[in-house]
Amino acid sequence: MMHAAPGGFVPALPHRRYTRGLFFSSRGSVLFKSIVLPVFLLGAASAAVADEGQWQPHQLPQLSSELKRIGITMPAEKLADLTRHPMSAIVSLGGCSASFVSPDGLVVTNHHCAYGAIQRNSTAEKNYIVDGFLARTRAEELPGGPNTLVYVTEKVENVTDRVLKDLDPGLSGRARHALVQARVKALVAECETDKAYRCAVPAFHRGLEYYRIKQLMIRDVRLVHAPSDRIGNFGGDIDNYEWPRQTGDYSFLRAYVGKDGRPADPSPDNVPYKSKDFLVVSAEGLKNGDPILLAGYPGRTSRYKLPSEIRFARDVDYPAKAATIIADLDVIAAATKGNPAWEVRYASVVKGRNNVLKKTQGLMDGFARKDIAAIKDVQDAALRAWQQGRGDANLLAELDRVVGQDMALQRQEAAWAEALHSDLLTSASTLYRLAMERQKPDAERKSGYQERDLSFVKARLTRLEQSFVPSVDEARWKAALARYARIDAAVRPQGVDALLPKPDALAAMYKATALSDTAQRLAWIGKDPQAFRTSTDPFIALAVRLYDADLALEERRDEIDGNLERVIPQYMAAVIDWKKSQGKPVYPDANSTLRVTYGTVSPFAPRDGLLKGPFTTVEGILEKETDKDPFIVPPALKEAIGQKRYGVFKDKALGTVPVNFLSSADTTGGNSGSAVMNKRGELVGLNFDSTYESITKDWYFDTAITRAIHVDIRYMLWVMKEVDHADNLLEEMTVKYPKK
Amino acid sequence: MMHAAPGGFVPALPHRRYTRGLFFSSRGSVLFKSIVLPVFLLGAASAAVADEGQWQPHQLPQLSSELKRIGITMPAEKLADLTRHPMSAIVSLGGCSASFVSPDGLVVTNHHCAYGAIQRNSTAEKNYIVDGFLARTRAEELPGGPNTLVYVTEKVENVTDRVLKDLDPGLSGRARHALVQARVKALVAECETDKAYRCAVPAFHRGLEYYRIKQLMIRDVRLVHAPSDRIGNFGGDIDNYEWPRQTGDYSFLRAYVGKDGRPADPSPDNVPYKSKDFLVVSAEGLKNGDPILLAGYPGRTSRYKLPSEIRFARDVDYPAKAATIIADLDVIAAATKGNPAWEVRYASVVKGRNNVLKKTQGLMDGFARKDIAAIKDVQDAALRAWQQGRGDANLLAELDRVVGQDMALQRQEAAWAEALHSDLLTSASTLYRLAMERQKPDAERKSGYQERDLSFVKARLTRLEQSFVPSVDEARWKAALARYARIDAAVRPQGVDALLPKPDALAAMYKATALSDTAQRLAWIGKDPQAFRTSTDPFIALAVRLYDADLALEERRDEIDGNLERVIPQYMAAVIDWKKSQGKPVYPDANSTLRVTYGTVSPFAPRDGLLKGPFTTVEGILEKETDKDPFIVPPALKEAIGQKRYGVFKDKALGTVPVNFLSSADTTGGNSGSAVMNKRGELVGLNFDSTYESITKDWYFDTAITRAIHVDIRYMLWVMKEVDHADNLLEEMTVKYPKK
Repeated sequence: MMHAAPGGFVPALPHRRYTRGLFFSSRGSVLFKSIVLPVFLLGAASAAVADEGQWQPHQLPQLSSELKRIGITMPAEKLADLTRHPMSAIVSLGGCSASFVSPDGLVVTNHHCAYGAIQRNSTAEKNYIVDGFLARTRAEELPGGPNTLVYVTEKVENVTDRVLKDLDPGLSGRARHALVQARVKALVAECETDKAYRCAVPAFHRGLEYYRIKQLMIRDVRLVHAPSDRIGNFGGDIDNYEWPRQTGDYSFLRAYVGKDGRPADPSPDNVPYKSKDFLVVSAEGLKNGDPILLAGYPGRTSRYKLPSEIRFARDVDYPAKAATIIADLDVIAAATKGNPAWEVRYASVVKGRNNVLKKTQGLMDGFARKDIAAIKDVQDAALRAWQQGRGDANLLAELDRVVGQDMALQRQEAAWAEALHSDLLTSASTLYRLAMERQKPDAERKSGYQERDLSFVKARLTRLEQSFVPSVDEARWKAALARYARIDAAVRPQGVDALLPKPDALAAMYKATALSDTAQRLAWIGKDPQAFRTSTDPFIALAVRLYDADLALEERRDEIDGNLERVIPQYMAAVIDWKKSQGKPVYPDANSTLRVTYGTVSPFAPRDGLLKGPFTTVEGILEKETDKDPFIVPPALKEAIGQKRYGVFKDKALGTVPVNFLSSADTTGGNSGSAVMNKRGELVGLNFDSTYESITKDWYFDTAITRAIHVDIRYMLWVMKEVDHADNLLEEMTVKYPKK
Repeated sequence: MMHAAPGGFVPALPHRRYTRGLFFSSRGSVLFKSIVLPVFLLGAASAAVADEGQWQPHQLPQLSSELKRIGITMPAEKLADLTRHPMSAIVSLGGCSASFVSPDGLVVTNHHCAYGAIQRNSTAEKNYIVDGFLARTRAEELPGGPNTLVYVTEKVENVTDRVLKDLDPGLSGRARHALVQARVKALVAECETDKAYRCAVPAFHRGLEYYRIKQLMIRDVRLVHAPSDRIGNFGGDIDNYEWPRQTGDYSFLRAYVGKDGRPADPSPDNVPYKSKDFLVVSAEGLKNGDPILLAGYPGRTSRYKLPSEIRFARDVDYPAKAATIIADLDVIAAATKGNPAWEVRYASVVKGRNNVLKKTQGLMDGFARKDIAAIKDVQDAALRAWQQGRGDANLLAELDRVVGQDMALQRQEAAWAEALHSDLLTSASTLYRLAMERQKPDAERKSGYQERDLSFVKARLTRLEQSFVPSVDEARWKAALARYARIDAAVRPQGVDALLPKPDALAAMYKATALSDTAQRLAWIGKDPQAFRTSTDPFIALAVRLYDADLALEERRDEIDGNLERVIPQYMAAVIDWKKSQGKPVYPDANSTLRVTYGTVSPFAPRDGLLKGPFTTVEGILEKETDKDPFIVPPALKEAIGQKRYGVFKDKALGTVPVNFLSSADTTGGNSGSAVMNKRGELVGLNFDSTYESITKDWYFDTAITRAIHVDIRYMLWVMKEVDHADNLLEEMTVKYPKK
């Protein structure tokens, strides 16, 4: 029930998409490796320079002098052009980022982004998760499955006028929202006449601008190579969000198309996609202080929220969310205890919940460490004073009012989510909603329930079987209903309480329903609403009963969203004018579209007297080695380190092979797998995470502590050569080796 | 029963003496303060240079080129002369180190070294611990009490010949030990004819050499100034051994003497001691990589132990010790629970035990992290091969034999300590032993029981009342007896079991004894052995009963010590020859005598990707602030930081006032309060601790991770000026301020 951004991308993504691959950065510089490295201090303190900004490529020419200043030699104009190198090599996997590294559609991304493809090809006999996988020939490449897709952004058009023109200012929020949605859907439909493409019209600057993004969607994507997860996921959940880090989070996919060169369903007849562009890989390496460029598809940030919204998140939303997750995890643990099969079934749910919990706790820790709301207060007061000077105080009063309504409704939506915290009920509601929406012409259907969304809905309803046990679902829902009952009555959506089952009725419901069976669940797709209304399945019946309340809540959401979409763009326009008056360009919040950020390789001081980064080394892998997952070191890797077979991949200053490094680039979830490029636009690393201290970056970019974590490409190349012997891929890529 | 080194210093010391103030170091260099500091990396890796070595001052000329290389401009020859500046300004407090900083006997040392003096002058009304203390005039200076003494080393003579000449190689270990002890005592007695002096004849290189140290003992020492313990002990036990650290661990004392200039008992008529020498204080500060000199009285190291001894400590001694302390702490907690007065009574015991536990765990962690025994194996094998080449293999076989006996006896001594783990029984045994020893001529008495020791023994027996509750002592002993009963019978000293009381007899013993009363306890001093033998006090009676077994164990210890004293010096001579053949001088293990070490200001990498140090800043104090001890920040300090009133004490590179810093100097317990000097011999800091990662330095100096923690003198001066307004002392000292 949490509302989606209008025109946002729908594809189902690995659960980590907004949790790993969240990242950042700034200036500063120390390279160190114990005492063997002479690092000299020269001169005194210089001003800190923020590397904040997830820029739309077309904005880069405005930043030309800044890029030059940090040492980027590639012209900003070149980076602004999506049809030219290197931007035309940057692709999306739908939730992760990636890039072409050969003219034959070879794609490099994170190990965790290709995990689904690795997992679906693994069996007890051929365990590619633990053993890794390498296709020595194209014929050996394995199907990535329906969730492994490559999106190549081909066109980005500003369609703001078409979305917003002649909107009657007197429209209600709901009417305005509906009209904007209809225009967005029309723009998408117009673009998707060629089924090879997937289009979206996301809002920028919270609705000030709309761009239509046209992406070639390649749907035959194969697994080419992945190291063992003991390399690709070394440190696992324990090291998630942590530094020091020594994770080889990389893997290779290949995009395939029909013989006609157009996207096609998976088929042995397909041929490698001839990528127009690819990145050159540089094994020359970076050192501390070197500039980097990072391009990818960051998911979502909230950098322009009001101080009141920060306080709401900090004081209300996050604490409640953390408490709910902790309680839910306890219930899952108790309900699956003693049944290993059930534990396995819920392992990924638990992992996902824990990951969100760690992020939520990181946000709360970050807010406790630094009073971001107070910092925003100062900025907000300055903006308001400036706006007042322009004689337009109404806007901000109106903004405060609508934002206040939004926060109040968010609390009700959270309560609603508690009341309906059952995977089975969610499935039933989705099915009935789909039936209702399909009564309308496709263009008028709710986004997410159009024909174009059907395959994703079906996949979601099918996938449930992998992580569902009726008795566990029942226990989770029962506990959630008890939590719901403790929520302040004023916050519970009106009229809902009476519709909910009593806790002691749940057992009978789970006994009577047929929805636990995947085939039975899927069989409801295509049935008309009347079939639902006459069904005796208790979950279907409940979904029907709850429909009006759900819709009422959604209408209130639409009303508020419509008002937000009307007011916030005016606010953002004021922010942009204000910043412009200070000579500063403004980047829009992340919205899963292609962005470029830049920064430098740099460590950070999480606390007085302590410095983290910027590099880790292969020796650090042995430091962390235990005989237990996730710190098991594969024997071949251990041997290569032990024998110091570093060859050309040895960093001269470090005296060994670097594994991960930190940069000050501005990233977030969705940036997983993003290309990290050197000043010439050559691939030198892959983005895969950010530090725990950086988690609050989604709200506020703190130059001093925000750092993104990258795999050093030298580690990837070295493991491919010395451990996995992936010589075929090393040959296929264009690798620039350092001069001897 | 643990044996004391022959001729060692006896004075009672603050419990931290061998636990805090344990330190070290090496080369490397990074100064950082988040991203505002530009630190550039120049060039590639250089060889690590060990700053290992606690050198006897007379050895320094051998290291002249090394001192020059790191940037020390003061000539090594000058440092070698105890009668010249700056060495003549370095003093001992008996367990801590200190230095004169004015011609009027003003002494600067650590806050924790003057803690006893601060505590004894504090009352509920005038709480100098929390409020700090500043004497604005000499008249306001407060008595330091009998444990606050200043020792000025005036003469160091090599008396090896007199201790070792004409020793019959055929003597039994015990006879040899007795003869050496007798000679040492004679040398001490001869030196102490002038009661103004305290003399000692400690062994160097484990008995290869003996030096007679003659120290002026000043016994009227007054408290001049101490900051609040919220500055002087900021971080408390939580930060003990930790970095980052922000502790203002400094305080000032003043030495007073009679009008004739000679040491005198405390009296209002005394006058400040006219110190011949004092250190100039430099507020110019250090930066990363700068050289430092450190002079003080390190207590005890074990750098020349055999690999077998390291394994014994690692695998047998430390695990047993840690288990015993943990068990004992549990017993104390249970026995004092619910009685706040008892908890206070045992607070310092608990603190002391915890401190030893942390050190022991640090040792075990360090041994687990790095296989020091294996490193020593390599060195040992090389030495043995070299020794074999000289045709002298017998020595090493003999050494292994005696060391084996020593380790076996150590296990029995540890068992004995468990059996007698009662403060009351220990007191009774001390009293009876004193009575027995006093039957002999003074010169023949056991060291520790001579006339010269009497005041220390009395002080110890008196001090017990501050940390003793009969029922708690009973509970501790009872638990220790149960642990003793579980020790392998072969390890329990022969014949002792039958002498020990049954656990259920303890209650009656504590009921019947009069020794819990301090006056009654002290009344036994001077009584003859017959009075003990006929006493019905159960503890006195038990002490008499255990006497023979105690003596038997001691005789076996003397036998082994005598053998060790015969064999180990030959081994050390071989080590010295061997090192000499490689052009390396050899420093003796620390033995509480004046030593000089040097190093550089430098951070360290405790783990791959993580760097600690070298500086912390006043901002770090606010980072750690809580409203709870030990992280309460005094308002005046908070205000000074908030207003950035840094003035001349601001470090240009850091942009703020540094608080603590790390250096690579080689230190250990006893170095607390040691002067940290710049290349010109000016005071720039006070040593006060070492990092947790450095704890194993007592066994092995690991250049990469061993670091000492110092108070930056700029923090001390800044707090004195801005917070405590100690302008009188700032005037009295000679402070060199940086040029504007």
